[in-house]
Amino acid sequence: MKPTGTRDHLLSTGLRVLHARGFHASGVQDITAAAQVPKGTFYTHFDSKEQFGAEVLGRYWEHRASNAIALLSDEARSPLQRLKAYFASKTRDRAAGPFNTGCLIGNFSAEMATDSRLVRDRLGSVFAAWTSLLSRCIREAQAAGEIRASLQPDTIAAFLIDAFEGAVLRAKVERDATALLRFESIVFSLILT
Amino acid sequence: MKPTGTRDHLLSTGLRVLHARGFHASGVQDITAAAQVPKGTFYTHFDSKEQFGAEVLGRYWEHRASNAIALLSDEARSPLQRLKAYFASKTRDRAAGPFNTGCLIGNFSAEMATDSRLVRDRLGSVFAAWTSLLSRCIREAQAAGEIRASLQPDTIAAFLIDAFEGAVLRAKVERDATALLRFESIVFSLILT
Repeated sequence: MKPTGTRDHLLSTGLRVLHARGFHASGVQDITAAAQVPKGTFYTHFDSKEQFGAEVLGRYWEHRASNAIALLSDEARSPLQRLKAYFASKTRDRAAGPFNTGCLIGNFSAEMATDSRLVRDRLGSVFAAWTSLLSRCIREAQAAGEIRASLQPDTIAAFLIDAFEGAVLRAKVERDATALLRFESIVFSLILT
Repeated sequence: MKPTGTRDHLLSTGLRVLHARGFHASGVQDITAAAQVPKGTFYTHFDSKEQFGAEVLGRYWEHRASNAIALLSDEARSPLQRLKAYFASKTRDRAAGPFNTGCLIGNFSAEMATDSRLVRDRLGSVFAAWTSLLSRCIREAQAAGEIRASLQPDTIAAFLIDAFEGAVLRAKVERDATALLRFESIVFSLILT
């Protein structure tokens, strides 16, 4: 495997390991063993496990962002229908896979925001980018007359993300879709109206 | 120190350590060192670090529950005013202390719900008890005509808890009260109306 191939392979394997087990519960050894590369290889590519964690988070968000962009700018649907499709797809993804891994963004916020400045800054950028994607679609729904003009799009977008992350945490404990379906039901009956 | 005194002391010290640093990032050694007791003492009182974690969570909730009961059943205020006072007090507590520790219930949901059946079951009971406290006050606010009778109290209570936990996560990343104040503002202007 070429050096860049190894780096990429470590990141994609590490994403699965850190998402399933958590950052502190996974050792570098667990990551290299899962990737089937010698342990020393890790430090050829990454300065520290913390830097690795920050890059894994970037990769996770890259994937999530491209899904969000695809759904939230799908002009075959009205803006409000796009918002509904977006959250419904997130519930569906979780209902199809294991509930117990949660969202890496929420997991890292809980586990790493305290001690890692690097990961905390990266989380801040992820939340800002995510808020901006949702906010734009909320603004479009307002322009289309689908939801009240009195809502402040950035504020509502940030609230939806926080409430969604909380619902994902609860779904992780309950191991079913109840909290996610409740989120969708309340958001679309009481907030985005 | 008497054996029961040591057990209690380990739990109260351990609560501070696990809340500040996380479960997996704290070793038994960190807990006994902070408590200034020999490491072996830990296993005299607890079968495992996991069992210790479950008891620490119970102690954390006990304290939170007694605050919640005091505020949510304070008949000097109307039910809706009690709900406002309750969430305002939670924002105030966080604004006074460090934002970076988050809520132990949310932290453990993110970090331990995957691997520990014991802690996951305890988290389920905590969420159920918390939902029930809020739900009762929401029902009282409906009976007093302060909020719409069309809201389903248990559903709204569970949603509020999830959204609050998500806001606490975000506040941990941003290290300020923005997400908590946003939560209060949206909940009391769009949901509990």
